[in-house]
Amino acid sequence: MIYLDSSATSFLKPPQVAEAVFKSFSTIGNAGRGAHAPTLNASRLIYDTRDKLAALFGSPDPSRIVFACNATEALNIAIHGAVHTGEHVITTACEHNSVLRPLYLKEEAGTELTIIPADEKGRIRYDLLNASLKPNTAAIVLTHASNLTGNVTDMAFVSDFAKKHGLLLIVDASQTAGSIPINVMDMGIDILCFTGHKGLFGPQGTGGLYLREGLTLPPFKSGGSGVHSFDRHHPADMPTALEAGTLNGHGIAGLNAGLDYIQSIGVKNIHNKEISLARRFLAGITDIPDLKIYGDMDAPLRAPIVSLNIGDMSSASVSDILWEDYEICVRAGAHCAPLMHKTFGTEKQGAVRFSFSCFNTEDEIDRAVQALHEISE
Amino acid sequence: MIYLDSSATSFLKPPQVAEAVFKSFSTIGNAGRGAHAPTLNASRLIYDTRDKLAALFGSPDPSRIVFACNATEALNIAIHGAVHTGEHVITTACEHNSVLRPLYLKEEAGTELTIIPADEKGRIRYDLLNASLKPNTAAIVLTHASNLTGNVTDMAFVSDFAKKHGLLLIVDASQTAGSIPINVMDMGIDILCFTGHKGLFGPQGTGGLYLREGLTLPPFKSGGSGVHSFDRHHPADMPTALEAGTLNGHGIAGLNAGLDYIQSIGVKNIHNKEISLARRFLAGITDIPDLKIYGDMDAPLRAPIVSLNIGDMSSASVSDILWEDYEICVRAGAHCAPLMHKTFGTEKQGAVRFSFSCFNTEDEIDRAVQALHEISE
Repeated sequence: MIYLDSSATSFLKPPQVAEAVFKSFSTIGNAGRGAHAPTLNASRLIYDTRDKLAALFGSPDPSRIVFACNATEALNIAIHGAVHTGEHVITTACEHNSVLRPLYLKEEAGTELTIIPADEKGRIRYDLLNASLKPNTAAIVLTHASNLTGNVTDMAFVSDFAKKHGLLLIVDASQTAGSIPINVMDMGIDILCFTGHKGLFGPQGTGGLYLREGLTLPPFKSGGSGVHSFDRHHPADMPTALEAGTLNGHGIAGLNAGLDYIQSIGVKNIHNKEISLARRFLAGITDIPDLKIYGDMDAPLRAPIVSLNIGDMSSASVSDILWEDYEICVRAGAHCAPLMHKTFGTEKQGAVRFSFSCFNTEDEIDRAVQALHEISE
Repeated sequence: MIYLDSSATSFLKPPQVAEAVFKSFSTIGNAGRGAHAPTLNASRLIYDTRDKLAALFGSPDPSRIVFACNATEALNIAIHGAVHTGEHVITTACEHNSVLRPLYLKEEAGTELTIIPADEKGRIRYDLLNASLKPNTAAIVLTHASNLTGNVTDMAFVSDFAKKHGLLLIVDASQTAGSIPINVMDMGIDILCFTGHKGLFGPQGTGGLYLREGLTLPPFKSGGSGVHSFDRHHPADMPTALEAGTLNGHGIAGLNAGLDYIQSIGVKNIHNKEISLARRFLAGITDIPDLKIYGDMDAPLRAPIVSLNIGDMSSASVSDILWEDYEICVRAGAHCAPLMHKTFGTEKQGAVRFSFSCFNTEDEIDRAVQALHEISE
């Protein structure tokens, strides 16, 4: 089996991740709910993982890292907490539904929303940003990289724009955390939302957000916190303010191991390996007749994603043949990115997405290239 | 080490749970996000676990089981979705902050709230329920068993009361799911909220809710769903309506194994074993001078919890000595149950909670009894 669906979840992980999760079942209790070894082990593990996430993203303070069960939850916490009625917010056509749907709900509740379109290569129309400004523009919410095209947002440009106009900058790093360097301070990011089970190699059920110091968000959920039990309100201290109930200690144990792996290899090295595989794939398929590739393949910085169609073949058919005849895992369909498909006119056809991991081999890439050639014939 | 803190999390689990989670790292991809083996394995696993939860709780339809990351999230989904401004809702002094705090928020937003007090043994004052009714009473939200006293709610009584007055019945089964039989149809439960990492032996990061057929709740989070990508709204079909983003597939793999274990032993047998250990413990400690025990120890149906204090010793001191001198894990403090402590006048002292698992042995109980005797001397 050749797994080329790492943008959906990192099925290929360092073996230490599963081992750390397994081991956690004999070491951790419920964090912050007692003072015996299992509970202290859990508390230390969670703190240590916060610390590693803070280091990875350049957050000076680990308490600004909040755990959530996935990036979708993190984005819901961020958007529902930081975007207000009467304000105007800017987003882009490159977004996943985990950004769009919470924003549509805010729009229905009285927030004004502008969606910056993308060009024929799926690039954000940065030239339209200035014209989209209104007196009440308060925030810009956008992805660091499109999960369909792999196009990476020009963070320097967006960050300057946000800073210049006093906008809150909320970034969806679902496709980049762990595989493209991120520094929240250098990039001027106010809220960074990330998942644990993609580039960070953690288990499903992990993820979270970074919240800039000085920013507060209302609790998204309230409940037990192990501290301040007699207060009517959920505690306001970070990170507890945005975490309620028992955290996913077992999942966090795996995420911790994933972060160790990333730290040992280096994000840039992981990125270079993945991009070299993506480029090898691209070079191998360009001569396929009737091939349509979606995205800006010449950009210097890209996520390791190649989405394509062969002629008018439905993306589901191509994906099914790849699995059934070649045991190659890819993803077809709409990828929860409706406005990208409207941009490319692929609402019905969808697209076949190949996404690469640093654990893929050149041989696997070559077999995928060969398979696509055979399918096109 | 003797682990008597199972009400915080089931550190003692059937070994199959950790093994199933470990194995899932080599079998599952992202559920519903493709058609290759890893993604289908994940979809089947999640469906199968829904099915087992439905069977355990007597839900006729597995699609009425929603996964959440913990019971707190399930309770937030239930309370924020089902309790409305202008309505009156009844709860009890036995509740955990995961029930109280969401209800206090609703109260601040215009819901009327009545908290039925408890008597000196921590029993709900059922005799006050009728008098608490108002023309706009719409729901009753309460725990199936107190996490402090182990008192089990008289569900037959509450269910009849709710039915008679047309009230929505929302039950927090954090302390009972898996260790006390629950049948949502027989008990007339409209929404059952449960955690995966206590009596169900699953990993942390799992839990969910059962929602009666015919009831709908607004999405608590919105985002990617793998289906209906072109809709502006999160899908309304159950269970997707109340789940957004990637589920905790690895955790659910462990929960599935926990459910298999429970099914093989039987909830009643698990309960009998746990209660016999709790009664053995209780019998061993009753002659300790100045012992205060909180709860209705003579009730025919109880959760395997014994909370106590020795004279005026702080609960934290007793708990620390138990750990440091005897390697016995218990929990001290307020247990996120503020109104129970107000009932018992233990706001400052807290209480030392012993909670038992079917994996504890009689020898462990006897050693804990001996330890308490020595501490009291």
